Amino acid sequence: MGSKDGGGGGGGMAAQAGRLGVVASVAFNLAALAFYLRRRYFGGDDAAAVRKKAEAEVAPSSGKPPVTKDSIINLDHGDPTMYEAFWRGGAGERATIVIPGWQTMSYFSDVGSLCWFLEPGLEREVRRLHRLVGNAVADGYHVLVGTGSTQLFQAALYALSPPGPSAPMNVVSPAPYYSSYPAVTDFLKSGLYRWAGDAKMFDGDTYVELVCSPSNPDGGIREAVLKSGDGVAVHDLAYYWPQYTPITSAAAHDIMLFTVSKCTGHAGTRLGWALVKDRAVAQKMSKFIELNTIGVSKDSQLRAAKILKAITDGYDRAPAAGDDDDDSSRLFHFARRKMVSRWAKLRAAVAASGIFTLPDELPGHCTFANETVSAYPPFAWLRCGKEGVDDLEGYLRERKIISRGGGKFGADGRVVRISMLDTDEAFAIFVDRLAAMN
Amino acid sequence: MGSKDGGGGGGGMAAQAGRLGVVASVAFNLAALAFYLRRRYFGGDDAAAVRKKAEAEVAPSSGKPPVTKDSIINLDHGDPTMYEAFWRGGAGERATIVIPGWQTMSYFSDVGSLCWFLEPGLEREVRRLHRLVGNAVADGYHVLVGTGSTQLFQAALYALSPPGPSAPMNVVSPAPYYSSYPAVTDFLKSGLYRWAGDAKMFDGDTYVELVCSPSNPDGGIREAVLKSGDGVAVHDLAYYWPQYTPITSAAAHDIMLFTVSKCTGHAGTRLGWALVKDRAVAQKMSKFIELNTIGVSKDSQLRAAKILKAITDGYDRAPAAGDDDDDSSRLFHFARRKMVSRWAKLRAAVAASGIFTLPDELPGHCTFANETVSAYPPFAWLRCGKEGVDDLEGYLRERKIISRGGGKFGADGRVVRISMLDTDEAFAIFVDRLAAMN
Repeated sequence: MGSKDGGGGGGGMAAQAGRLGVVASVAFNLAALAFYLRRRYFGGDDAAAVRKKAEAEVAPSSGKPPVTKDSIINLDHGDPTMYEAFWRGGAGERATIVIPGWQTMSYFSDVGSLCWFLEPGLEREVRRLHRLVGNAVADGYHVLVGTGSTQLFQAALYALSPPGPSAPMNVVSPAPYYSSYPAVTDFLKSGLYRWAGDAKMFDGDTYVELVCSPSNPDGGIREAVLKSGDGVAVHDLAYYWPQYTPITSAAAHDIMLFTVSKCTGHAGTRLGWALVKDRAVAQKMSKFIELNTIGVSKDSQLRAAKILKAITDGYDRAPAAGDDDDDSSRLFHFARRKMVSRWAKLRAAVAASGIFTLPDELPGHCTFANETVSAYPPFAWLRCGKEGVDDLEGYLRERKIISRGGGKFGADGRVVRISMLDTDEAFAIFVDRLAAMN
Repeated sequence: MGSKDGGGGGGGMAAQAGRLGVVASVAFNLAALAFYLRRRYFGGDDAAAVRKKAEAEVAPSSGKPPVTKDSIINLDHGDPTMYEAFWRGGAGERATIVIPGWQTMSYFSDVGSLCWFLEPGLEREVRRLHRLVGNAVADGYHVLVGTGSTQLFQAALYALSPPGPSAPMNVVSPAPYYSSYPAVTDFLKSGLYRWAGDAKMFDGDTYVELVCSPSNPDGGIREAVLKSGDGVAVHDLAYYWPQYTPITSAAAHDIMLFTVSKCTGHAGTRLGWALVKDRAVAQKMSKFIELNTIGVSKDSQLRAAKILKAITDGYDRAPAAGDDDDDSSRLFHFARRKMVSRWAKLRAAVAASGIFTLPDELPGHCTFANETVSAYPPFAWLRCGKEGVDDLEGYLRERKIISRGGGKFGADGRVVRISMLDTDEAFAIFVDRLAAMN
């Protein structure tokens, strides 16, 4: 697979420079033709996309540097670079976006709308994707956009906290919980809300419960554990997509959060969305985003819309139940195949090592795939039974593997979270190293 | 000018649909050629930009709807749609960006950098633009990127507040101050900082002073009014660009905030940057953005880099002191000409009406234009002397002009802030209506 190693450096740079020369020359000819056609047939900007190749480009970064056999392998964050191979293929071309210099300059997308900074094209593609996958009910819900689901999570806390000078709302989640929840809840020492820890240990009446399902970090299927008092649940469904878990029913909770980062792999686009039932809550969440960042990048919204469209269109071309061998235009099939293969390798490495354990596989009937499948979570929740290893994160770090220790998730130090979504190269080195530990 | 009215609706829609047919047909031929060339010469993604025109597009919004003679004219926000005419011209084509589906998927831009989510290409163009304009010293400063300067403002408050359980830091600014400062400072009831009002009335020792210069709302040149105790200043230089004010020297303050919204007109891109002297402060600001939104849209960063590059390249082609009549590739000259013309029309309307006053013109020697020029602020700070008009915002609203009342800026109700950056059409209707009031 191409992965993200091409732009990195070393020997590849010279080869790439030569290739760019060819590109530039072909592009120049195209540009000349396009320029002629543009002047002849229309006065607009549509040829600019062709012409621009003749201009010097602003080179984008390629993320983390490529790995080698001896590298530090960083699987701390859930950096979803596994998906790059898919988007370099046929479907990826249909996700290419061209934004002319004059486009979407206004703060506003739809000035009369509840979420006035939401691009209508993105809303349309979000609803279309949920209809395709069947993982959430979108009809009758307000769609909100955020700078990643992290911003929408904060918007939900803001919207659900009581106004006026009452005590801060308690924010809880059953351990092990996503390590960012406490940090993001508390970093501004808000008087509106405060982190109150493990939901299973909480016994107050006024709270927001964060329900992440499938769970980050352990992949388990979760329901709200607290049902009493004036509590409200926020459902973080970032991983409720068919490559990670069987889609057993269309979720229909009051507030549901999603993100392209974990659905399509476009983490750098920083684009999340929320489905919100109650109008007043949706309005307050929208207000948070207005105050925090005056809306959300339209460039990201247009790109996300194009990406989601390419996915849904891909299934319109090659239905979910079609030929199982051609996944070049079927994102969820591509990603599931990757996850199946990676989990098999990981379980084999764990068996070879003998000092680790993993959560059991959870099977279920997937309405999207229309068959019974296992869950293949985006994170491995890896536990070590070896005597003396009380700080597994440190133990792995000494072996040049960066993971995130259990303590950050409200769990113990003998367990870590490992991203399963990095490049093929990084993942292969990781499982090799793991298999050799004993 | 083309402005943003094309996509709006009504009679224009059908005409546009017909035009799209032609575009699609031409594009299809281009696509076929490109497809052939791509297969023949290289296996990459470079022809995708051409091909994609043959695919159905995700239509972007066009912001606020177009205005008519009887419309409500909304000049409440500083929506910078005035700039669209420039970007529809020659320079705009050079600012077109093409983002393939596989690009910048990682969370990271430069994993080892202080601001790990900052695209190196954007940093380069930011530094290059400041060198061209001479409005700020960038050498020796850290460059940070934010989701608009609004996010960077909050990042600065977070970074400058003392850690530990002390009382919240006081945040002040001399009245009239930007109306968002109090709201954004206080909306989360942070225990780290709190709004403490007019800097001129403040007499504590521990504070952050926000210095907006040229000032939003009144266009005045400001320096920190508080110089005692442990206070720190944050300089909001969103409007310190040569179209609005003479560039009298290169600013070299500890923390300086900028945004493309008011420099280039791309508000929808939500992209700001900060120049920060102190490494520890820059690190904490970066941490804020990590916690708040896990970085900043790379699509916006790549687009902003391309836009800033087009501006600087434009001056490389046609130097600042060149032919004064050709502004098609010189953004600051284009925008200054607009501002001069609009302020002349506004002052004429105010004179015709007889019930309004405006701040005096402030001249100065501009090192960028290399001549003495007047300031032409992006907002008009309009005062009404008519008896009985104590709520000027309400008075104008009855006349279908939406402005922002003085009370929101810590001033009185007989003054309002009016955006000078809307479309030509909206501005023309506004001055006509104003001239008729008496």
